[in-house]
Amino acid sequence: MIDIQNHADDRNVDIDRVGVSDIKYPIVVKDRAHESQQTVASLAMSVDLPHEFKGTHMSRFVEVLSEHNERMSISNLPGILTELRERLDAKSAHIEVKFPYFVEKSAPETGSKAVMDYECTYRGTVDGNCTDIVIGVTVPVTSLCPCSKAISDYGAHNQRGYVTIEVRSCLEKDGKPMMIWLEELIEIAEESASAPLYPLLKRPDERHVTMQAYDNPVFVEDLVRNVAVRLKRDPRVAWFTVNTVNHESIHNHNAFANIEWTRTKTNGNGAHLAPEAIEATKS
Amino acid sequence: MIDIQNHADDRNVDIDRVGVSDIKYPIVVKDRAHESQQTVASLAMSVDLPHEFKGTHMSRFVEVLSEHNERMSISNLPGILTELRERLDAKSAHIEVKFPYFVEKSAPETGSKAVMDYECTYRGTVDGNCTDIVIGVTVPVTSLCPCSKAISDYGAHNQRGYVTIEVRSCLEKDGKPMMIWLEELIEIAEESASAPLYPLLKRPDERHVTMQAYDNPVFVEDLVRNVAVRLKRDPRVAWFTVNTVNHESIHNHNAFANIEWTRTKTNGNGAHLAPEAIEATKS
Amino acid sequence: MIDIQNHADDRNVDIDRVGVSDIKYPIVVKDRAHESQQTVASLAMSVDLPHEFKGTHMSRFVEVLSEHNERMSISNLPGILTELRERLDAKSAHIEVKFPYFVEKSAPETGSKAVMDYECTYRGTVDGNCTDIVIGVTVPVTSLCPCSKAISDYGAHNQRGYVTIEVRSCLEKDGKPMMIWLEELIEIAEESASAPLYPLLKRPDERHVTMQAYDNPVFVEDLVRNVAVRLKRDPRVAWFTVNTVNHESIHNHNAFANIEWTRTKTNGNGAHLAPEAIEATKS
Amino acid sequence: MIDIQNHADDRNVDIDRVGVSDIKYPIVVKDRAHESQQTVASLAMSVDLPHEFKGTHMSRFVEVLSEHNERMSISNLPGILTELRERLDAKSAHIEVKFPYFVEKSAPETGSKAVMDYECTYRGTVDGNCTDIVIGVTVPVTSLCPCSKAISDYGAHNQRGYVTIEVRSCLEKDGKPMMIWLEELIEIAEESASAPLYPLLKRPDERHVTMQAYDNPVFVEDLVRNVAVRLKRDPRVAWFTVNTVNHESIHNHNAFANIEWTRTKTNGNGAHLAPEAIEATKS
Repeated sequence: MIDIQNHADDRNVDIDRVGVSDIKYPIVVKDRAHESQQTVASLAMSVDLPHEFKGTHMSRFVEVLSEHNERMSISNLPGILTELRERLDAKSAHIEVKFPYFVEKSAPETGSKAVMDYECTYRGTVDGNCTDIVIGVTVPVTSLCPCSKAISDYGAHNQRGYVTIEVRSCLEKDGKPMMIWLEELIEIAEESASAPLYPLLKRPDERHVTMQAYDNPVFVEDLVRNVAVRLKRDPRVAWFTVNTVNHESIHNHNAFANIEWTRTKTNGNGAHLAPEAIEATKS
Repeated sequence: MIDIQNHADDRNVDIDRVGVSDIKYPIVVKDRAHESQQTVASLAMSVDLPHEFKGTHMSRFVEVLSEHNERMSISNLPGILTELRERLDAKSAHIEVKFPYFVEKSAPETGSKAVMDYECTYRGTVDGNCTDIVIGVTVPVTSLCPCSKAISDYGAHNQRGYVTIEVRSCLEKDGKPMMIWLEELIEIAEESASAPLYPLLKRPDERHVTMQAYDNPVFVEDLVRNVAVRLKRDPRVAWFTVNTVNHESIHNHNAFANIEWTRTKTNGNGAHLAPEAIEATKS
Repeated sequence: MIDIQNHADDRNVDIDRVGVSDIKYPIVVKDRAHESQQTVASLAMSVDLPHEFKGTHMSRFVEVLSEHNERMSISNLPGILTELRERLDAKSAHIEVKFPYFVEKSAPETGSKAVMDYECTYRGTVDGNCTDIVIGVTVPVTSLCPCSKAISDYGAHNQRGYVTIEVRSCLEKDGKPMMIWLEELIEIAEESASAPLYPLLKRPDERHVTMQAYDNPVFVEDLVRNVAVRLKRDPRVAWFTVNTVNHESIHNHNAFANIEWTRTKTNGNGAHLAPEAIEATKS
Repeated sequence: MIDIQNHADDRNVDIDRVGVSDIKYPIVVKDRAHESQQTVASLAMSVDLPHEFKGTHMSRFVEVLSEHNERMSISNLPGILTELRERLDAKSAHIEVKFPYFVEKSAPETGSKAVMDYECTYRGTVDGNCTDIVIGVTVPVTSLCPCSKAISDYGAHNQRGYVTIEVRSCLEKDGKPMMIWLEELIEIAEESASAPLYPLLKRPDERHVTMQAYDNPVFVEDLVRNVAVRLKRDPRVAWFTVNTVNHESIHNHNAFANIEWTRTKTNGNGAHLAPEAIEATKS
């Protein structure tokens, strides 16, 4: 049967990325509290395509996924990426995995427990011998407006906000990225806000978080800076972006703020900046 | 050229509705303040198909739309519906028009002006000699939690909420539905909440709405009831649904409430309940 | 601590439904092939609220969910609904569960296996002694246009379409709804289309489905009728809706068709129409 | 009244962008056929915030927007950006405008006319004396699979695909970006596909596009390359990205391809590469 994809192409145009997207798949991810958890991911996988080939072989992406879905964690992303690159005869391969991640939370006064979801991402690239991994999480929080509090005799407008953090780790001496848990990024976001959100609050808990938010007003600018300060302090972090957005309760539009940062020198303790990681942050 | 759609069908299955959806079209709608405004609609149009025909003629929907887009208001919906029914050789025809509607609002203290958008809908059906029109609007508002205020020493969680109202009018003596402006539904929703939202607030305005919300706490239950009480009082309203939802600032989920109501007797003043409208509310 | 929700309310307005929505939760559902599968649901839960009470107790919804998430299937929905109604002191309780459901599929020629996702729903209501359960699934399919095929010398436009089926079962003699598997509804939708979709197709498989689609052209009207005919024939089905939509490859809008049907007499074999189920289909 | 935003900040963290997003606003855009058209935009506006200030003044974004909404075109974006930067006391300012843009299209055989919508974007940045403008459009098209056609005895799977083009212009001698119409980008995308989409097709037109698509099969890789070749050839284009995605009619996932390109030398005819534009493409 004819293989059109393998035909020669004379347009002389390299393709940066070609692949499949919007694949839903059940996956297992590493979990700090319970070793692993099952969840459902939306995936995109791609490779480069040199100008001399007409097409890539799309079905191989799904074949590789099917063989690996049992364990999808940052520790085995490099293996999946290498296999994608080889099976597709490419120089580079990319994967993006988005999934809800569930963490059990205890209410601050009554200790009532329930699980709460956070949207997370793993993004990985292998290019030649260089592997680059970025992890990310979106954390919903409460933000209470400092201006509204300061200028009003009582009350202060507050709302649900979202903090999205993406992080690239420094490398261990053996070249592996240093481990940063999704749970650690969630904690950083929640500590930077007026108050965390909870899946289950009884009345004493509601009283607690209401006053906690009033005691800790933050603008969207404060929220993004509070996260940035905490991430810069962590010697494992080589690069990050922070995006914060408030679904303003007094407006029909949102307020947002962004910071991107790259570590330019390590602060000892065995962490190494991967030259390729630094390079990758430029593009 | 063969007309497959006109072929006979022997499956003996009537189709309730068949048509086109997700059409974007520029439209002009009636506007209380400026006579009319131009906006962009997403439309669905459909007809019934009796069991003896294989298919409908989809291109005629777009033809009718193209001829009428200059004026898309509740007053000419009946004409468009009748034309759809005739051009498609059907018993019934339906149209649903969703569009952002813009209203200029003045900030409560400084009077600063800007326009704000509200998602609106017109839904119309013609079935035999009976025409049924429903108008709807989604109004974003501030809701401040009465429980949080009552149990806390200071502050109260509040958030953006959304009030969706759909209304069917009583009929004038000549059989036409009584006029209810979208702006009137917007005002009812905003008066029922802790505070309205604004596109533009300077600091004195922000102080105003912060304290207004704190002075008027409402649960999602209060919000839906406040709207229901106002709509029942309006003699032009024959039927309504109200859906309210709060994007809780202390939780990662929403709180919602719904009420549906049908007027069973008119309260004088010339309003008539259309038997067909009442019948329609049952299905 | 004061319980504002329990206060009296003098607006004299009953609320049809009040509750929580957009809760993401990991759940386990029954699976025909493997007994059960883990997936992630989006849930809404609600109760009625009589006019004499100011508010419901929202945190109890999440408490009930937390206790039951391990097994969320149509067989234990009635138990969850009864518990919701009792814990919230209500007359009626409602739950809606939406989740991706994964089924392993084999390619038609090479037998290559991979899993594919289908969006599914369970909707349940308990009202007095009456329980009503509806299951639903959205199945992506290929549809190839009969008109395009008939009037063209070669080729025919085709596209991805979506078939959404919702079904209410007849009752067994003991009053329990007859079991209908999600997999059975998926098969009905796929058999009614030009061709099924697959997660993984090698070239011989692609040839197979290309010609299968060309040999089985269906309008959106044919698709909805083919499903309706199959569902009416199944004696377990008491009521259904079918919605089909084609993402037309020659237009920037979609074509759709809907059918709703209620069985008016059972065709023997032990199936019973629940009076309450029939009643429920009217509202 | 206290101005909290003006307070000093000691966290020593510059913010890249802070502003407002998800603002819906009626705008007027330039139109090749009719001089201008009214449509509805979703906007984001932002500025940088130096580390020494606690917050920006969000209400000023909406003030500037309100003053300029009557004319929102690439020719007056620089003025809006400069005003944003000055009113917000910032070094840089950014604006992103997304809107449906309507173009009348004639069916290929019968000439039947109707309008069709295309999602478009204007993105502008002013940073110091450097202004950078990018225009973009998403064009829905038909793509027919060359592999499916080659390996099957008859038929070929086809589907709706989307081509997203973003372009930065070369500069005129006076430093202004060369004019490229949205309509020109739409034509490039449609000529690169198997067939264009139409809002209204009668049967002779449907026959035309069915056979046109079968005669012009393209992979997602061909589609992205065909667009790239056309854009490289246009001496006005200094930089572009092309993203193509096919909503595969035989799979429940999509296929996609991306190319980014920067012109490294101009090909005469008065076009100049702005150093700042080139620089901007690196970040």
